[in-house]
Amino acid sequence: MASEHEIEIRVRYSETDAMGFLHHSNYFNYYEMGRTELFRSQGGDYRQMEADGRYFVVVSLEAKYRHPARYDDVLKLVTRLVKVGAAKLEHEYSVFCGDELLATARSVLACVDGDGQVQRIPDNVMAAVE
Amino acid sequence: MASEHEIEIRVRYSETDAMGFLHHSNYFNYYEMGRTELFRSQGGDYRQMEADGRYFVVVSLEAKYRHPARYDDVLKLVTRLVKVGAAKLEHEYSVFCGDELLATARSVLACVDGDGQVQRIPDNVMAAVE
Amino acid sequence: MASEHEIEIRVRYSETDAMGFLHHSNYFNYYEMGRTELFRSQGGDYRQMEADGRYFVVVSLEAKYRHPARYDDVLKLVTRLVKVGAAKLEHEYSVFCGDELLATARSVLACVDGDGQVQRIPDNVMAAVE
Amino acid sequence: MASEHEIEIRVRYSETDAMGFLHHSNYFNYYEMGRTELFRSQGGDYRQMEADGRYFVVVSLEAKYRHPARYDDVLKLVTRLVKVGAAKLEHEYSVFCGDELLATARSVLACVDGDGQVQRIPDNVMAAVE
Repeated sequence: MASEHEIEIRVRYSETDAMGFLHHSNYFNYYEMGRTELFRSQGGDYRQMEADGRYFVVVSLEAKYRHPARYDDVLKLVTRLVKVGAAKLEHEYSVFCGDELLATARSVLACVDGDGQVQRIPDNVMAAVE
Repeated sequence: MASEHEIEIRVRYSETDAMGFLHHSNYFNYYEMGRTELFRSQGGDYRQMEADGRYFVVVSLEAKYRHPARYDDVLKLVTRLVKVGAAKLEHEYSVFCGDELLATARSVLACVDGDGQVQRIPDNVMAAVE
Repeated sequence: MASEHEIEIRVRYSETDAMGFLHHSNYFNYYEMGRTELFRSQGGDYRQMEADGRYFVVVSLEAKYRHPARYDDVLKLVTRLVKVGAAKLEHEYSVFCGDELLATARSVLACVDGDGQVQRIPDNVMAAVE
Repeated sequence: MASEHEIEIRVRYSETDAMGFLHHSNYFNYYEMGRTELFRSQGGDYRQMEADGRYFVVVSLEAKYRHPARYDDVLKLVTRLVKVGAAKLEHEYSVFCGDELLATARSVLACVDGDGQVQRIPDNVMAAVE
């Protein structure tokens, strides 16, 4: 299965801030979109996984910002699944505007049940992501 | 019970947009805060109401914008409950910066159950808001 | 020139709320996207308009909500320009999930300069939208 | 001057997600509020700094999430300035709900001019933060 996926995202006006830039917190919403689409490209369905009572929650994040993005920029987000554990996934992200690298990040997600207890990643999910 | 309540809200950087103003969509988050705090001032607890299986959902909104707000402005939001029906509440909102009226709005909320079906407002809630 | 435009928007996880629905404030970000893309389809470029010192600000909004949207829903947003004045634009919006109409809205925008003073809509913009 | 500051933040409904938790991206808006208020407590005024043509932009972030926050929770955010360089500031953050530590983070900000070029932190700002 593919462990890398690319999507395009156009920066919304509501996502900019008074500096005129995409606000740094909004990149994490993009990264989440990247994960959703990578998982979909692998045959997964995160909405169904939640309906089945398993959730991925963010455990840790690291992010670097090199250059700002602006309203109406069309960004390219590359999402890579770099590590698969029994209960955790690690992803890396790169955001480009044209050829310019704007930002990178890394996240660790844990699989939990509805009470927030860590659980093994379900077999059907594991089959998709591995 | 009081049917009017006032709160202060300081505009966050993340709520501004590239024009340097509080983005118009964020006022609705403020209005929701106003409703929460008005209800609390009446002895209500919206979190508990949800735990009891009843929700207020927004049915309609009207909003007018006169002057913009900016980062770090301390706004005064006045929330008034203007009509109480068997299953609906109507609120009016006024946002001030100092003495200047920036924006006004009106909303209609409906009481629903977890399936989105309209339900009578629970007695304990009605006792608080009436 | 076309005065109606349609876009697809997939609901992001970050846009949902604790009820599991797309939060009502986020529809206004969608409507803004609809305006941007309608204007682009007419040959306009809102970023350039701002660079030229003219802005559209929201003066008033009306919104109705019939049915909720959920994470990962692919919504269809139809944006129509229904009235063009010397300094104002009126738009109407309809949001569908499949064939079901979820929400409608209407907005009035005013053209202003960098000081917030109302100005005639620039000729090149007027040529696009008329 | 104080290099640590504490604020209370009540979680807004619009900040929650379909899991019922404060969405992880919103913590970064809280951290930014913490920086603004720490700076204010030191006699600084970030809005004035921007008016003077200097900005702090986020260069890097690290964040850890231990326990979720929910709608209406009153959180305590402790913001500490841990390192002051010629053009950079490093902050640490801790978010508590009651006595429970929910999340921690660390950020590096760079001082830039309106063109995004790194600049020395202005003397009046340095006097406040040191």
